[in-house]
Amino acid sequence: MKIRIVNGPNLNFLGIRHPEIYGIQTLDDINSAICNAITDSMRGIDLEFFQSNCEGDIVNYLQSCYNDKIDGIIINPGALAHYSYALRDAIESILIPVIEVHLSNTSAREDFRQKSVISAVCRGQISGLGAHGYILALLAMINILEE
Amino acid sequence: MKIRIVNGPNLNFLGIRHPEIYGIQTLDDINSAICNAITDSMRGIDLEFFQSNCEGDIVNYLQSCYNDKIDGIIINPGALAHYSYALRDAIESILIPVIEVHLSNTSAREDFRQKSVISAVCRGQISGLGAHGYILALLAMINILEE
Amino acid sequence: MKIRIVNGPNLNFLGIRHPEIYGIQTLDDINSAICNAITDSMRGIDLEFFQSNCEGDIVNYLQSCYNDKIDGIIINPGALAHYSYALRDAIESILIPVIEVHLSNTSAREDFRQKSVISAVCRGQISGLGAHGYILALLAMINILEE
Amino acid sequence: MKIRIVNGPNLNFLGIRHPEIYGIQTLDDINSAICNAITDSMRGIDLEFFQSNCEGDIVNYLQSCYNDKIDGIIINPGALAHYSYALRDAIESILIPVIEVHLSNTSAREDFRQKSVISAVCRGQISGLGAHGYILALLAMINILEE
Amino acid sequence: MKIRIVNGPNLNFLGIRHPEIYGIQTLDDINSAICNAITDSMRGIDLEFFQSNCEGDIVNYLQSCYNDKIDGIIINPGALAHYSYALRDAIESILIPVIEVHLSNTSAREDFRQKSVISAVCRGQISGLGAHGYILALLAMINILEE
Amino acid sequence: MKIRIVNGPNLNFLGIRHPEIYGIQTLDDINSAICNAITDSMRGIDLEFFQSNCEGDIVNYLQSCYNDKIDGIIINPGALAHYSYALRDAIESILIPVIEVHLSNTSAREDFRQKSVISAVCRGQISGLGAHGYILALLAMINILEE
Amino acid sequence: MKIRIVNGPNLNFLGIRHPEIYGIQTLDDINSAICNAITDSMRGIDLEFFQSNCEGDIVNYLQSCYNDKIDGIIINPGALAHYSYALRDAIESILIPVIEVHLSNTSAREDFRQKSVISAVCRGQISGLGAHGYILALLAMINILEE
Amino acid sequence: MKIRIVNGPNLNFLGIRHPEIYGIQTLDDINSAICNAITDSMRGIDLEFFQSNCEGDIVNYLQSCYNDKIDGIIINPGALAHYSYALRDAIESILIPVIEVHLSNTSAREDFRQKSVISAVCRGQISGLGAHGYILALLAMINILEE
Amino acid sequence: MKIRIVNGPNLNFLGIRHPEIYGIQTLDDINSAICNAITDSMRGIDLEFFQSNCEGDIVNYLQSCYNDKIDGIIINPGALAHYSYALRDAIESILIPVIEVHLSNTSAREDFRQKSVISAVCRGQISGLGAHGYILALLAMINILEE
Amino acid sequence: MKIRIVNGPNLNFLGIRHPEIYGIQTLDDINSAICNAITDSMRGIDLEFFQSNCEGDIVNYLQSCYNDKIDGIIINPGALAHYSYALRDAIESILIPVIEVHLSNTSAREDFRQKSVISAVCRGQISGLGAHGYILALLAMINILEE
Amino acid sequence: MKIRIVNGPNLNFLGIRHPEIYGIQTLDDINSAICNAITDSMRGIDLEFFQSNCEGDIVNYLQSCYNDKIDGIIINPGALAHYSYALRDAIESILIPVIEVHLSNTSAREDFRQKSVISAVCRGQISGLGAHGYILALLAMINILEE
Amino acid sequence: MKIRIVNGPNLNFLGIRHPEIYGIQTLDDINSAICNAITDSMRGIDLEFFQSNCEGDIVNYLQSCYNDKIDGIIINPGALAHYSYALRDAIESILIPVIEVHLSNTSAREDFRQKSVISAVCRGQISGLGAHGYILALLAMINILEE
Repeated sequence: MKIRIVNGPNLNFLGIRHPEIYGIQTLDDINSAICNAITDSMRGIDLEFFQSNCEGDIVNYLQSCYNDKIDGIIINPGALAHYSYALRDAIESILIPVIEVHLSNTSAREDFRQKSVISAVCRGQISGLGAHGYILALLAMINILEE
Repeated sequence: MKIRIVNGPNLNFLGIRHPEIYGIQTLDDINSAICNAITDSMRGIDLEFFQSNCEGDIVNYLQSCYNDKIDGIIINPGALAHYSYALRDAIESILIPVIEVHLSNTSAREDFRQKSVISAVCRGQISGLGAHGYILALLAMINILEE
Repeated sequence: MKIRIVNGPNLNFLGIRHPEIYGIQTLDDINSAICNAITDSMRGIDLEFFQSNCEGDIVNYLQSCYNDKIDGIIINPGALAHYSYALRDAIESILIPVIEVHLSNTSAREDFRQKSVISAVCRGQISGLGAHGYILALLAMINILEE
Repeated sequence: MKIRIVNGPNLNFLGIRHPEIYGIQTLDDINSAICNAITDSMRGIDLEFFQSNCEGDIVNYLQSCYNDKIDGIIINPGALAHYSYALRDAIESILIPVIEVHLSNTSAREDFRQKSVISAVCRGQISGLGAHGYILALLAMINILEE
Repeated sequence: MKIRIVNGPNLNFLGIRHPEIYGIQTLDDINSAICNAITDSMRGIDLEFFQSNCEGDIVNYLQSCYNDKIDGIIINPGALAHYSYALRDAIESILIPVIEVHLSNTSAREDFRQKSVISAVCRGQISGLGAHGYILALLAMINILEE
Repeated sequence: MKIRIVNGPNLNFLGIRHPEIYGIQTLDDINSAICNAITDSMRGIDLEFFQSNCEGDIVNYLQSCYNDKIDGIIINPGALAHYSYALRDAIESILIPVIEVHLSNTSAREDFRQKSVISAVCRGQISGLGAHGYILALLAMINILEE
Repeated sequence: MKIRIVNGPNLNFLGIRHPEIYGIQTLDDINSAICNAITDSMRGIDLEFFQSNCEGDIVNYLQSCYNDKIDGIIINPGALAHYSYALRDAIESILIPVIEVHLSNTSAREDFRQKSVISAVCRGQISGLGAHGYILALLAMINILEE
Repeated sequence: MKIRIVNGPNLNFLGIRHPEIYGIQTLDDINSAICNAITDSMRGIDLEFFQSNCEGDIVNYLQSCYNDKIDGIIINPGALAHYSYALRDAIESILIPVIEVHLSNTSAREDFRQKSVISAVCRGQISGLGAHGYILALLAMINILEE
Repeated sequence: MKIRIVNGPNLNFLGIRHPEIYGIQTLDDINSAICNAITDSMRGIDLEFFQSNCEGDIVNYLQSCYNDKIDGIIINPGALAHYSYALRDAIESILIPVIEVHLSNTSAREDFRQKSVISAVCRGQISGLGAHGYILALLAMINILEE
Repeated sequence: MKIRIVNGPNLNFLGIRHPEIYGIQTLDDINSAICNAITDSMRGIDLEFFQSNCEGDIVNYLQSCYNDKIDGIIINPGALAHYSYALRDAIESILIPVIEVHLSNTSAREDFRQKSVISAVCRGQISGLGAHGYILALLAMINILEE
Repeated sequence: MKIRIVNGPNLNFLGIRHPEIYGIQTLDDINSAICNAITDSMRGIDLEFFQSNCEGDIVNYLQSCYNDKIDGIIINPGALAHYSYALRDAIESILIPVIEVHLSNTSAREDFRQKSVISAVCRGQISGLGAHGYILALLAMINILEE
Repeated sequence: MKIRIVNGPNLNFLGIRHPEIYGIQTLDDINSAICNAITDSMRGIDLEFFQSNCEGDIVNYLQSCYNDKIDGIIINPGALAHYSYALRDAIESILIPVIEVHLSNTSAREDFRQKSVISAVCRGQISGLGAHGYILALLAMINILEE
């Protein structure tokens, strides 16, 4: 079961930017926590991480996931969520289930964060639950893939 | 650790309404699945279920949660999500962490389902992941309460 | 052929509220008129009336119609028409044909009355034709059920 | 009792256009059905039919109804409903009761079909009840005229 | 000096429709009044009147004005003012000065009457001054043509 | 002089919810203060209090006020102010003067609190003046009834 | 017959500002032209001119017109047209017929010039006809007052 | 306790403008009534009245209140309520509690009267209660200042 | 292969109206150019031209195309593109592939030209490429019909 | 004559993504078809292809076209059409004629696809005509460049 | 080189109002700082300061600048920025370069402060840089005037 | 004092694109001018320049500024200003003061240029003052850093 975790712009700055909103963990801390959350029963999971500040690189990476026959993708699109129709088209075109994660409760923040243009082409969303949201998304993805 | 799972209008009709969207499980099936998901390590959890088609009864129930010193609430508000500011005020006033769950990916449905007026006062949201979303929310709530 | 006629909030105050808009008939007068309109050829019709000022009770009643295998429903949602997505979901979930009736021509009144959130899930609408609208809806429902 | 039934643009193409929405009956079929629906007790009714694809011709026809002392008009404005303020002004100026009919439930279709600019100057509306809607409108008009 | 006075849909029903808004004069009365207002000093004016309920005929007439080398046009577009971009394009294309007249003060009426889509391509507007508005427009046109 | 004071959803949680906005008084405290504010000269006043979290119960109560020949009603609709057109219709239909009270200055809070759908059918509004607002409303109501 | 001609902000700068839009005449030139336009048959007219860049002074002046029993007012509100509800209220309160004049065709200019907040409380509007518009307004006012 | 009562544009025309909306009392009548309402127990109150049709003068006056160490201000901004951000800034900057009064129920009138741009920086609002509203505001202000 | 080229209002005035936008060719020039563009290999094409300023006539013509078993239609709707839902319904009902052509780049012009209400029911659009756009549309239609 | 064909994000996934919308041809298939469409008479054309998922790379490429004195550009911007003002500025700054191509009829798809922010700075658009659209654009560009 | 620095409503209350936003300097402090910033090389500058809370007085002052042949104007319009089209017209009509200054970063504040109606007719804007913004504007103006 | 000057997409094409708007200077010319503007008293400033057409590269560069302990950043985001929430998040996360510069007066241009999504997280803005704006921004930044 090959799953990829993709992070968008500025998520490599976690721990620096607004710790009162995003927490003090760095992205590496979060990735380690995700790895640690894999229990014995989940051991067959092939997990890799990708982060980029470039919309185009993320689109490229998503397309490579298609070529690599990845089974599921967990994506925190960062601010691209709010305008990147290119990201939306990429998600739609690769025919792989995608779960969207947001660390903060975007509904409680600025107006422009109320709308994600990729949500409609993802399977589901997990928002506001911090770094733990990635682990929940991983569980959800396993659940979807095992159905 | 006392957690309550609250379902709003029409969720007692799961399995009847749009099975292609909401699945074939009834609400009882889902509640059983949630109970079954409680593993040994989670055994101290006191879990109860509440469903009503009446906004006022749900507000009353949420207030009783405050009086009963409930630790966390998981709510699927159903269609009340889209207009019930009374529900929003209730959630805000009881000072208990609340996680919002939607079975379907509301972002991919009608316009009026794009906006939840309670999201801003909940901790987080889980949408589009089906009945499994309740179990994820339960895990998330335990995680929040154990922090 | 089991048909139910459902009236929403404040329709029990017909004859009191704005008689220049809604006429001087009380709801009982209207219900009697509907019964009287049943001609010999329609005699097999099992007709019952329900009115409530509570959204939740109306949702409950609609769900009971499903359980009671009601064939058709005629509903005047009153002001719930303009915001009750819970009512909409209920109508959609019970899989019974529903015809929406409004006594007054809502298009000629306040802005907020221009939009009914339940119309899209009803079979059709009859508006502005006064108490006679219920009788027309009954004829329409019989026509639909006999098709 | 002189009643006229007016159909707007493209309604002469009924049976061709979207039969899954509008049914397989042609306009002639519908007109015959309306005539057949006239029962013995309604025999004094002078009924005529008019259809045009031209907004101006319909306005002219409505004005001629005024000159001919027509008692009531049933109109299916077709797509003119959504923008023809000239039609609205004509209806308003002729001082004859008008009932608006739509074959399909326009509330369940495209956004632009949600609004009829003539509704506010008609007596009432009947929508979504197919060709039977004309017959209901005829009954309604007789009811209005006999009041 | 050749000037044409063009009236759009329903203006031939003046005196019938809403006399409290439009006055009791018929269109013929108004046209006579305009003719009578031509004083000795204005005697070289070639004045003709045109009214139609058909947008297309009005466009045709405006184009014929171009071919007939008409010097100025006074138009009361009626309800076409609010949506007829075809009329707008016609006015723009014929390269003749046009003054727009409205009998009533459209600013004090329904929302849809607040906007005229032809105003931007006319020289000016005279509104709310009743039938006298045509005479003022005639004076204005003479003033423009004599500049 | 029979006056009723009606409180909507969540107002029974005053003193718990956002004391920095709503103050530390409970609803009982406020009701006592209102009673205490009745001076000797006002002694003929028959005052009763009603609170409910259910829209339908409030509509029912308002209708009962009509039957009980209540002279005036003071209502704090809570969040129902922002969407309950059923409440609006109830107020409009009972033909009793109603004064709307809000504890907080809703104009200085979230966007959705800027609009009350019942204001147009109330006599007046008192907002932002805390629990004292009820007493002012009582004085205003006496003033209206004594006119 | 006492008529006042009121000009709002920046109209004293006519001839300086955008002569390609407003012409090369100064306000004094225009006022002289208006006086000259008074023919023998109009000799009983008492005409005065007022200009101010201050909204409050214009409101004061309009109120003084009420006290001075002025019969009619012609106003070019300048940019106040687009936001001065105080001016609107003043016009509405003095109970004197007012005609609104704009030199340029505001419909063909910036978006913010499309709406005049005073139009609904004036008798009528004359726009886009340059300085001649004042003279037309004077004729219109005489016509109104002589009715 | 120094309190000032400030009235904005056109309020000096009370009794003339729309008596059916604003009542027949003049501003002097109202001011006298306010003075008369001061009971023995309130005798330490230093009350002054200010009215102007000029936004700038009102801003100046509010600033002078700051310099004069006024304790509270009651303002009926008239139409300035709907656009004067300068008035808003003045109220915000003087650091004195301000209560906003409107004679009529602005919610039941034109669209532009639905929004007051100063409400967010006032303590509270009293609307629709006529001249009595000033007295209620005075009571409210005393209550605030005595807290 | 029977193809019809339909031109809407004012396109018969090409060469007169705004030559800087639409070019100096008349509609006849363009039609000749289209005919000349038919090469030997396209010789089986039966091509006819239709132009009208009347919406209703164009709807009639489109319906006649259905009766005449026309294979494809190329339409430049002129300003009807921006509001004629009747034209839209006609195109949708005749079940013939239609390509929409605009001479100018409407995206670079007035706001109201940004939206074509018929685009959604046409196969495709060609805009901004001048008279050559018709020839391209002809090639496209042949390509579609030969598929 | 140097012409470049530029494809934006996800167009390299043609044949994978939504074949029912975009067809089964890959981008290489399309490019070959374009090359094959060059007939003998067009032989002097220097044609190159560029595709990237990165907005910035496309902007760089367009700038390089300026430096390489490219004569014309055909661009299918993919989803960048809907938000990339950077792409718009690039097209505007390089002073080379650009034709915009969309494979699908974007007018018949999601709301966000209704608007292209680059259209206003392109010469024209060809939409909905599939891969053939590129060939038509090539013909159009040759026509423009030969003018 | 004659330059004028104009401050709008409430700027004379700097140091009192929101020091956390506007700083603790009074307007006199700021004006002194501006004077001090004039270095030897700038000595030929004739600088004067004007502040008013009255829109009309500012318009008058700007017009006097035209008469006094002022070379450049620096204006902080205060809240007038958000609605005073009269100020906009004044700036546009005097034909003097104007630079707009805002002390605070209005983009980071309330919604109504996001739009300045005068920006389009000013040369440029400097916002959010505090009192230093005036000095930068002075440098910018000198730079413009020396070009 | 380490300051970086960042330019976004298409700014490397200055001097080519719209010289009537942006001037004839190239970006190199401007950078030289900025360097030359550094006077003796400013000699400790470490200034570097960065330009990219890629949003992602600019985000990367801003993050490297954080790592390099840069003191201040001056950014002309080009068209990214209008949609790049990723850029906004980057600016917000690096905790370095940023001043936004626009060469042209964006308020006087297209609608989409009226809004900068990064303004709220910058210290201030300088717009419309041409290349000199960078120098002013540099002065402003020094002023901020020296505070």
